[in-house]
Amino acid sequence: LAAVAGAACAEAAKSEDLIRWRQSAYQVLNWNMERLKANLASPQYNKDEGAKAANTIAAIANSGMGSLYAAGTDKGKGWHDTKVKPEFFTNGQKVGELAVAFNKEANELAKVAATGDAGAVKAQFGNLGKSCKACHDDFKIKD
Amino acid sequence: LAAVAGAACAEAAKSEDLIRWRQSAYQVLNWNMERLKANLASPQYNKDEGAKAANTIAAIANSGMGSLYAAGTDKGKGWHDTKVKPEFFTNGQKVGELAVAFNKEANELAKVAATGDAGAVKAQFGNLGKSCKACHDDFKIKD
Ligand code: HEC
Ligand code: HEC
Repeated sequence: LAAVAGAACAEAAKSEDLIRWRQSAYQVLNWNMERLKANLASPQYNKDEGAKAANTIAAIANSGMGSLYAAGTDKGKGWHDTKVKPEFFTNGQKVGELAVAFNKEANELAKVAATGDAGAVKAQFGNLGKSCKACHDDFKIKD
Repeated sequence: LAAVAGAACAEAAKSEDLIRWRQSAYQVLNWNMERLKANLASPQYNKDEGAKAANTIAAIANSGMGSLYAAGTDKGKGWHDTKVKPEFFTNGQKVGELAVAFNKEANELAKVAATGDAGAVKAQFGNLGKSCKACHDDFKIKD
């Protein structure tokens, strides 16, 4: 994971903090995907509102969430029991590929949202959503 | 609150989602304040790691969290019962002032962190922390 820098700092934090923080960061992604979806479905797409959502998503993608997956956080409870699969900690290459793809799509979304072209935002929203799903398919325990 | 734009979209979301999302966004602030504090306390301040934390904080500050305080979310449960005080919904002018101050300090932190000057980051970290506390003193129920 590119984002492993900073793991040294994060190690000082307790596992339950790290798990709660990553679950929180994903919920912030969720919020911004939902508001972007609602914006795209509304009769008049709002460019500023769309850019805010996209910029927030890109910031989380660039935040270095890898440090929230420190050793020992494969099991444990944040807001609730972690839903990460054990494979996340043993298949670093695949996790890295998925993280890079997610990062690329998120930054592309921010770029496209800055133009205000609703059609292009919609298409890129779809691409980003696929990169979330790809990681969940492999590394997140199903709800 | 400057961030009230987007409330129309957020209204489609359920109160429990909005409360969970704002509690999550504050936890992302918490994560990034903690990692910045640990970074500043470490023998060798890491510029890239500091910039990531500061940029994430600024992005949350710019995200438009006002839309997560839609009518009807003065009471209810996200991850847990909301800790917002009822005054948040009746003293919009004061909330707006505190939100603007927070926004200013967060964006200033991102600017300072980009330079990598640890002393300046430390000072601005302090200023930002005061803006968190100012809002909590008036509008957050004590833990
Ligand atoms: C590189 C892997 C990866 C990517 C990319 C990813 N996720 Fe996840 N996601 C996970 C894992 C692992 C968990 C479980 C975290 C835990 O419980 O510790 C998770 C959890 C979640 C949760 C549940 C959070 C909770 O506990 O309530 C949501 C919602 C979510 N992700 C949304 C998204 C969205 C939206 C995107 C893209 C915009 C995304 N994720 C991208 C791996 C990923
Ligand atoms: C404009 C007001 C305001 C500002 C600015 C603000 N907060 Fe808060 N904060 C709140 C309110 C209100 C709540 C309670 C939210 C709820 O429970 O619905 C809260 C809750 C929290 C929580 C608890 C989240 C949870 O439910 O676990 C943390 C942690 C937190 N804030 C940290 C911060 C940090 C760190 C900053 C600044 C970098 C900050 N806040 C800035 C108003 C603010």
